[in-house]
This record gives sequence, C-alpha cells and structure tokens, in this order.
Amino acid sequence: MEGCSVDSVYRKHFPFWDTLPEDDRRLLCSGTREVSYKKGEAIHDGDDCTGAIFVKSGCVRVYILSDEGKEVTLYRLFEGDVCLLAASCVIQAITFDVYVEATEDSECYILNPKAFSDVADRNTDMKLFALELTVERFSDVMWVIQQILFMSLDRRIALFLYEELSARGGDTVKLTHEQIAKYISSAREAVSRMLKYFEAEGIVELSRSGVKVIDKKKLKAKAL
Amino acid sequence: MEGCSVDSVYRKHFPFWDTLPEDDRRLLCSGTREVSYKKGEAIHDGDDCTGAIFVKSGCVRVYILSDEGKEVTLYRLFEGDVCLLAASCVIQAITFDVYVEATEDSECYILNPKAFSDVADRNTDMKLFALELTVERFSDVMWVIQQILFMSLDRRIALFLYEELSARGGDTVKLTHEQIAKYISSAREAVSRMLKYFEAEGIVELSRSGVKVIDKKKLKAKAL
Repeated sequence: MEGCSVDSVYRKHFPFWDTLPEDDRRLLCSGTREVSYKKGEAIHDGDDCTGAIFVKSGCVRVYILSDEGKEVTLYRLFEGDVCLLAASCVIQAITFDVYVEATEDSECYILNPKAFSDVADRNTDMKLFALELTVERFSDVMWVIQQILFMSLDRRIALFLYEELSARGGDTVKLTHEQIAKYISSAREAVSRMLKYFEAEGIVELSRSGVKVIDKKKLKAKAL
Repeated sequence: MEGCSVDSVYRKHFPFWDTLPEDDRRLLCSGTREVSYKKGEAIHDGDDCTGAIFVKSGCVRVYILSDEGKEVTLYRLFEGDVCLLAASCVIQAITFDVYVEATEDSECYILNPKAFSDVADRNTDMKLFALELTVERFSDVMWVIQQILFMSLDRRIALFLYEELSARGGDTVKLTHEQIAKYISSAREAVSRMLKYFEAEGIVELSRSGVKVIDKKKLKAKAL
C-alpha cells in the first residue's frame, strides 16, 4: 500500500491483510510507529497500555514482577515475533500485567491500542488472530510455570552444569544439548528449551562450542 | 429445540445459540452426554481429549501435576461454569495438559470434542467464544501463579491465621475478610480471593462466622 512503511511487515503477520478494508489498513499503518530501544530499556511497564509490539530486530523479554522486585521471565521475542500482552486494554480477557524490556539493542514497531482495537472490533479475522496468539502464549507460559513450580528439569540441568564446571574448571561446558540431555536422562528438545530459558535469565550464553556460564552464582542458586 | 435436553443450558452459555444453523445445534445436542461424578473422581486426565465440561452441579477442580505427583490448583468451577482446557485437541494453541477432578459429587455435561470442533470450524462466534474463555482462564492462572511464585500474600494470610489460632485457640478465626485485610495491610478483594483459593486447597472453610481452619498442618506449611 502506498505511503505505508509497515505494509510488508503486516502482510507477513496478518495472513488476511489483503482482505482488510483499505481504511482499516490505513488506520493500522498510521497508528504504527517505529521505536529503537537500548539494551536494558523498558518497553512496557505493567498496567500501561503500550499496544502491540512487533519486533523488527534485537530481542525483547516479557516478564512478571513482584512487589518486592522479584522477576520471572515468561518468554523472549525475536525478529518477527509479536507481543500482545502489552495491549491488554485491547483484549478484555487479559487482566494481568506484564513488563517488557529490550535485552539487546532492539527496534520495534508499536501499534497503538486504539487503532488495534478499532480494527479488531470491525474484523473478525483480526480478533481471532489476537486471541489465538494470546492462547499460544498461555501455553508458553504454562511450560515455564511448570518448570519453575515443579523444579525438576531446571534444577537437574543447573546442577549438571555446576558440577561439570567444578570438576573440569573453566566457564564453558563443551557438550551438545543432545549430550547434556543424555547425561541427565531427559529429552534434547526439553534441554534446549531450558538452556534457552537460562540464557534469557542471563545465566548462560549458548554457542556452537557449548554452554558458557556467565553467572555462576545464579546457576548455583538454581542448582541447590 | 425439540428433543434436545441441553438446549436451555447451551442457550445460557452461548449468546449466539439461536443464530447457529439448526444442524449445528442438533450436532451439539447429540454430542453432549450428562455424567455424574463422585467426590474425588477424575473427570479428565492430562493428554486425553475429554471435551468441553459444563458444570451442572457440584464443584470441579482444574490442576496441573508434576511427574513426582505434585499438584497445583489452577482454579475451581461451580454450577454454570465451563472448562475448555480439557478440550485442548479442539483449540490447537493449547499445548499443555491439565487434570480435572470432582471435589464434590458433581453432575456435568460433556460435549465431545469432535462435535465441538466441527461446529467451531464452521461458526466464528463459537470459535471466538472458545478463545475468549481460554484467555480469561489464562488471566485466572496468572493470578494463581503470581501468588505462588512471589509468595507474599498467601504466606502473609496463612501466617496471620496460624498465629490467630495459636493465640486464641479453637479452629475458627472469627474475623471478616475486611478485618483480616486490615491486619495484614492488604486489600479486602485480594484477601477474599486468596481465602477462596485456600478453601479450594482444602485448608479452610469460609462461612459468615469466619474462617474455619480444617487442615492446620497445611496451613502451617504455607505460613512458614
């Protein structure tokens, strides 16, 4: 669409983009701004209604925060991902608050909540899209919660990494996820997911050469 | 609708009932069976696809379960409530498993997943209803999770109740929720919600005369 810089972005996200009335596409375009965030900068704070966040580049972390300042990471978003939990004013059924911050220098498109809700009210496809994406996040969150509440896999992996470092020295466990999974009698997929979660928490860095522990104190706390 | 014993039930739940094609209404009716459960009986186990559960009478508990048998109650459902998490095969975006059991003798209508998904595939209203209800549950679950992970209010209330009983004897704390909220510097709404959660966990019984502690051991474990 002429004069719409996010046309190609929205075309990718919304399979129904071309079926939206042109007025609505224009509204979404004009309601979108591109914002750059520095590493560590807040994108969304609790009960604000920031809008829908489309990650153009970098990495963004979605987390919950207790009154005492304790944080729990719900998930991370990368290039091409969307966060709707920062638009809870649009999706009435969302009654909880999350926080969003850039974990790297990031660029995002922010779709303002008014434009979002106006279009969703008029177009069922848009509404279904928003709800389905939210239910997917529900599933992601339940996975994290189960790991945390039931304290099995995360503790097992943390303990394994901690013991490896204690035994061999250095800061990197030079094993594949597959190998780690075997050592702790788990599935590779589950181990990879958990290691990515540890990375989001700033405990490890993942690379081809293995798992580099960057916060040994946090790792120990998880293991014991 | 003639010959459909759940017509009035579905009319109440689905605001769009009368706009559904008659064939679809018939399919929903014939796909529904009424089942009685004894107190403590399992209604839905993990990755089965039981279908949608409409509670006619009694009380039903939805929970998650660890490999080691640890349980966390997500919410309770009473007369007139619906549980769709036991129909995760219908809502593709739900990828986690829950367990459902009757916490009292209960009667439920169970809508089989095939009829449910056939109708939802054809009718947007039905699909929106299912997704919106699921997102509401997401919010309920986040509330419980935050209480559990951040361990503030539940511990504060449990500790307060425990100390009251220790000081005054007996098994009932004869205070209103408002009074308890004041004593622990919290909001009445939050205290009422948490006490209801304690009731679901079998720790207390709520009545006009106050909060009766029925499992002092569990209460102590929460408090300390």
